[in-house]
Amino acid sequence: MNQDYIVPNNWSVIEEGFDAERVKSSESLFSIGNGAMGQRANFEENYSGETFQGSYIAGIYYPDKTKVGWWKNGYPEYFAKVLNAPNWIGIEIEINGEDFDLNTCLEVKNFERELNMKEGWYHRSFEATLKNGTEIKVDVRRFLSLDSDELGVINYEITPLNKDAKIVYKPYIDAGVKNEDANWEEKFWEPLETKYSDNEAFVVARTFKTHFNVATYMSNSIFLNHKNLNSSPVKVDASADKIQFAYEVEVASGQKSSIQKFGGYTVSLNHEKSELISSATKVIAAAKAKGYEALLQEQIEAWSKIWEMSDITIDGDVKAQQGIRFNIFQLNQTYLGKDSRLNIGPKGFTGEKYGGSTYWDTEAYCIPFYMATKDQQVARNLLTYRYNQLDKAIENAEKLGFTNGAALYPMVTMNGEECHNEWEITFEEIHRNGAIAFAIFNYFRFTGDYSYIPEKGLEVLIAIARFWHQRATFSTHKDQFVILGVTGPNEYENNVNNNFYTNYLAKWCINYTIEQIEKVEKEYASDYSRIFSKVNLDAAEIVHWKKVADKMYLPFSEEHDVYLQQDGFLDKELVKVYDLDKSQRPINQKWSWDRILRSPYIKQADVLQGFYFFEDHFSKEQLEKHFDFYEPFTVHESSLSPCVHSIQAANLGRMEQAYTFYLRTSRLDLDDYNKEVEEGCHITSMAGTWMSIVEGFGGMRVKNDALHFEPKIPEQWQGYSFKINFRNQILQVFVNANETKFTLEGSQELTVYVNGKAVLVQPNTLVTV
Amino acid sequence: MNQDYIVPNNWSVIEEGFDAERVKSSESLFSIGNGAMGQRANFEENYSGETFQGSYIAGIYYPDKTKVGWWKNGYPEYFAKVLNAPNWIGIEIEINGEDFDLNTCLEVKNFERELNMKEGWYHRSFEATLKNGTEIKVDVRRFLSLDSDELGVINYEITPLNKDAKIVYKPYIDAGVKNEDANWEEKFWEPLETKYSDNEAFVVARTFKTHFNVATYMSNSIFLNHKNLNSSPVKVDASADKIQFAYEVEVASGQKSSIQKFGGYTVSLNHEKSELISSATKVIAAAKAKGYEALLQEQIEAWSKIWEMSDITIDGDVKAQQGIRFNIFQLNQTYLGKDSRLNIGPKGFTGEKYGGSTYWDTEAYCIPFYMATKDQQVARNLLTYRYNQLDKAIENAEKLGFTNGAALYPMVTMNGEECHNEWEITFEEIHRNGAIAFAIFNYFRFTGDYSYIPEKGLEVLIAIARFWHQRATFSTHKDQFVILGVTGPNEYENNVNNNFYTNYLAKWCINYTIEQIEKVEKEYASDYSRIFSKVNLDAAEIVHWKKVADKMYLPFSEEHDVYLQQDGFLDKELVKVYDLDKSQRPINQKWSWDRILRSPYIKQADVLQGFYFFEDHFSKEQLEKHFDFYEPFTVHESSLSPCVHSIQAANLGRMEQAYTFYLRTSRLDLDDYNKEVEEGCHITSMAGTWMSIVEGFGGMRVKNDALHFEPKIPEQWQGYSFKINFRNQILQVFVNANETKFTLEGSQELTVYVNGKAVLVQPNTLVTV
Repeated sequence: MNQDYIVPNNWSVIEEGFDAERVKSSESLFSIGNGAMGQRANFEENYSGETFQGSYIAGIYYPDKTKVGWWKNGYPEYFAKVLNAPNWIGIEIEINGEDFDLNTCLEVKNFERELNMKEGWYHRSFEATLKNGTEIKVDVRRFLSLDSDELGVINYEITPLNKDAKIVYKPYIDAGVKNEDANWEEKFWEPLETKYSDNEAFVVARTFKTHFNVATYMSNSIFLNHKNLNSSPVKVDASADKIQFAYEVEVASGQKSSIQKFGGYTVSLNHEKSELISSATKVIAAAKAKGYEALLQEQIEAWSKIWEMSDITIDGDVKAQQGIRFNIFQLNQTYLGKDSRLNIGPKGFTGEKYGGSTYWDTEAYCIPFYMATKDQQVARNLLTYRYNQLDKAIENAEKLGFTNGAALYPMVTMNGEECHNEWEITFEEIHRNGAIAFAIFNYFRFTGDYSYIPEKGLEVLIAIARFWHQRATFSTHKDQFVILGVTGPNEYENNVNNNFYTNYLAKWCINYTIEQIEKVEKEYASDYSRIFSKVNLDAAEIVHWKKVADKMYLPFSEEHDVYLQQDGFLDKELVKVYDLDKSQRPINQKWSWDRILRSPYIKQADVLQGFYFFEDHFSKEQLEKHFDFYEPFTVHESSLSPCVHSIQAANLGRMEQAYTFYLRTSRLDLDDYNKEVEEGCHITSMAGTWMSIVEGFGGMRVKNDALHFEPKIPEQWQGYSFKINFRNQILQVFVNANETKFTLEGSQELTVYVNGKAVLVQPNTLVTV
Repeated sequence: MNQDYIVPNNWSVIEEGFDAERVKSSESLFSIGNGAMGQRANFEENYSGETFQGSYIAGIYYPDKTKVGWWKNGYPEYFAKVLNAPNWIGIEIEINGEDFDLNTCLEVKNFERELNMKEGWYHRSFEATLKNGTEIKVDVRRFLSLDSDELGVINYEITPLNKDAKIVYKPYIDAGVKNEDANWEEKFWEPLETKYSDNEAFVVARTFKTHFNVATYMSNSIFLNHKNLNSSPVKVDASADKIQFAYEVEVASGQKSSIQKFGGYTVSLNHEKSELISSATKVIAAAKAKGYEALLQEQIEAWSKIWEMSDITIDGDVKAQQGIRFNIFQLNQTYLGKDSRLNIGPKGFTGEKYGGSTYWDTEAYCIPFYMATKDQQVARNLLTYRYNQLDKAIENAEKLGFTNGAALYPMVTMNGEECHNEWEITFEEIHRNGAIAFAIFNYFRFTGDYSYIPEKGLEVLIAIARFWHQRATFSTHKDQFVILGVTGPNEYENNVNNNFYTNYLAKWCINYTIEQIEKVEKEYASDYSRIFSKVNLDAAEIVHWKKVADKMYLPFSEEHDVYLQQDGFLDKELVKVYDLDKSQRPINQKWSWDRILRSPYIKQADVLQGFYFFEDHFSKEQLEKHFDFYEPFTVHESSLSPCVHSIQAANLGRMEQAYTFYLRTSRLDLDDYNKEVEEGCHITSMAGTWMSIVEGFGGMRVKNDALHFEPKIPEQWQGYSFKINFRNQILQVFVNANETKFTLEGSQELTVYVNGKAVLVQPNTLVTV
């Protein structure tokens, strides 16, 4: 826990004081991104202390050779890793002949970092005394432009405080980087070309194997007292993968000198390989034409537009406010929905752990946020991403022995291929397939846009239904279909039989697919015949599917009147979490794996995840019974756990519990609950935080093409508000202890339901309920 | 399969013809060992084709840093690997200026290898035409002395056939070797010292981390027409880890020239570190004093003594005869029982796969062979090995959360520490603990030597009973104790609940331990009080154990009237192996792991392993019912499977099936059933082959301190015989279709039971039944 380290503030993440032990954690928390690239909050200048350098480019990956202890058939030979990209931020600094390094200074005072989420920039300032006695004040601001997403901007300002200083700024770009998580300590980048002239430099490198070409560039200007000196480098060091300039400035005590560095990448995903340098030259030219101040202004405006739609306000609880904004900010830094080749990596641009960019998190947790706060095309792009990878998912299933176009989407992927290599996850955590089908259903439910299903979605649904049909086997003993050897959402169980969530989802997937086939047949005849001939489906096959869905076994306990998480769950020693000695927590750090597996402890919602997806299939009494049965065994050691529990606790009117879960999910990284934020932030669970407020406290649901709310408020809050883009109508919802208010943009009225009662909201008129 | 490749022969393994594709396989099959060191059948001369170089020294290991894809708490940071030792066999050969290499010769004719199992030597001969046109005949004999177990002997003879030849022999010793299975491609040996004079050379190296010091030595003599030329090297190349001599001989066409190389190791396990070179010098001096011919004669005599006790003869079936002798030969090459620090590695000295030297194979499969064919001290040494590692087994259990002196012996070990890192095996294949207890019971049953139990065994039993007591958990639901999350002997199931074999063994272990405590209390009062105060045990604890044993749940199917391999077994799709398409076999090569796990297919005896251990707990009808239920689902893809099934098929009078299983186990490596012999031979399963004959066909059992037989014979055989050391009386048993004969050595009579009928065998008198 990091509690009380980050200064509470409504709009900024603030760190005060320099602590070498916290550098790596803060590098994660103060990361910046613009959807196309991202940068950990590494120092620009040399730093000899512990640091985790990370620059990332969306969509650029490397297939690293798999490393395992014991090979199992079916593992991918290679898997796609998030790639640490060339460094564009580096600026070595020499002051009166000494290399400036915060780790070797005699004193560092008034160190402060601020991540200004409202305006989209990162700022660092401090005063330092070098070993040679020179005292300096440093102010650095950095941002990645939202408007020009190949551009990063740094303004690095130094003021000598106690004597005149000869300052040498040595900005560089460097493709000689490595991944911290490289399996075999290999380099992933091959330098191709370098070029420089005047104040601009370019290093073109390509990834080995995948051959993504990337031009990393920089353009530098030196200022004294805010006046551009139009300096040229006094020295250039160029090697195959690095170019470094040196600029000298004599600065009198008290004067301000600065370097402005524009840098970033142009990549072959978006440009011809031959035009990377010329494209970068254009980005530089445009940036220089605008200048630093105008670029910053643009950035503030661009973020202001994002906040206008996606902000959630919370009154009376600064930490809760800071938490939700941090989550919304990070989600928008990671994925803006412009490009259907991209997805939402679990660490976003804040670290490289886990490899791959796409988990079931996208479908299960992220899509609701993007659907409600962006144009619906964004969610459609996320669905299309899976559609585009359907062939690979079919190949993946074939590797595991499935046939006839059955698809198993990978557990983790970058390009459609599996990136994971742990049999109990890779081969057995197959419920991910169900979340992908659920997202198609959810997209239509929310947006009302059915066109996606005949165009693309139905093919995905059919391939998934085929998978479930083949994966289920018939138990003569039970006279029902069973699904053996799976890992459910609760990864603290492996290779179990008849995981309720998985079986229920499989049954639902088949039934839903059959319904959609019937609907498309009736209403989209030409799509229907196109798809049927493409996938070679006939009525007899559907009959077989149906049999599996109809006779799907669901483990149930008469005694407890609950569905069982899996066969045999009741054989466990059912000691509740609060009866467990605190010294044993978190169990994933304290216990060996076998002990975790045979315990009843649940990492994240499993049966309850099913109740979340299919809430309207069950009564509130059933929900309560299951919540009361499972929550006491849940250790919430997954970042994805508290949000679902927060929503359900709120639904059951248990506001204190809902609030506790909310804080845990929203401040997971800020307060570093699991002591791992130095590896990067938990981006995908941040969308769950949004759900905790909107679906949990706000009680928002879509039923029969209408928005429903059951607003509640934690007693710690005076009020909160959020906005929803519901079918291109923008509704803002304000909740306080006594009333709920709505405002609607546009010109059309909208009927919403509050606690089941219809409320007509007129555009631009405050409605209070 | 390699069937019909090895020439059938009663006493030798013979290969005819040179096939570069088979070099690695033959390197395994023709391996030699003397219990203290071993050597794959690598060529002495350079070979540029595919080869797997392997020299091994018993007890010398290296803790290699663990490599896994995903770390789990409890994995060992390092694990002990069988170490590829310095090369002492190397002799580069230059003939008329050309480096001799079988891979580059113009022609290789009459290539033959023979592993003479009767006499304990390996021979290779061939004629080759070099690229420079020189034709030579080569004869090489190599053996590792049983009498002087630090000594290896090579006689390498070359006859130029078509022209005179200048032959340069360049013998070397080289500590610059690597392990093929090194996790991080590191070197494991650090050179310390080299020394040479005249014809002798020494390289002292030590293992990194473990700091075993080893002097590798050689002493060379050059002969022409069998006359020692007393040559000295014309050249010496010495580096930090390698010394190479060069000897030149002018050999007229048709003349025989040869080099005799004595080489091997002296190691710090057996000598002071400062005396390794002087000890080696003594070994050389003794060997030179005897000379090659006398050493060979000694070797023949030493092996003859081993065969006298351990040979099994089979009449009328050369392949079966060759198979069993190969198995007995390899077992004796691997472990002679002289040193309780050593054990029986799964690959012996024939390869380095799997790491570690000790599996539950030792207790479950090997001890019966060593008990019956060696002095009983040998089996006692194997038990003592585990006793000596008890502290480490307790530590190992502590890592997994067990307390109070509970022990979990490692799955694989070299020094008592766990060498395995796959959670479903390392943490869950806990039945190994039971085999260690069973071996204590079995040792007493066979030898009648109870003294081991009060002296050492009881401490082991108590620690194991404690483990089972803690590992079982109470199921309120079942009102019985259950053992959740285990892997049984059938490793094609992982993380199952209530594996019958494991639960039954746990129950038995506790009960057996309590019986032994009671017996020791009565009969060995001073041991009793020593142990009780040491392990801090009281009567109350035993009551708790007893409760677990008494209320242990055993999964059972009323419908099939069989114990179930584990909970949920009947939910599987019970398609029998013979209904499985042949193209799907072996499933461990054709199927992904999840598919194997959810299938009903059994890798090796599991429930039936329990019926093997505890045969007298069940009726023959029960055995038959369980055999008929499980064998049809068994794919026998473990080397340890066919032997148990062979014994049980014989017990049930199904001789054709028993014979098929016998051939499969005895010729597993010779015929390379699983296409993997190039990695090394399956040493531990070879003891199972011995059991197939003695316990299977011979029907040998020990009941109430007496030997019982139910002799049967496969119809392919005319007769077979084996010898048993039963409590220091040597009984030989001859079986043919009509009768069983016994002879007994010594001076004391012995009553044995044949098919339940007592037979009095007088010493040195043939008794026919």
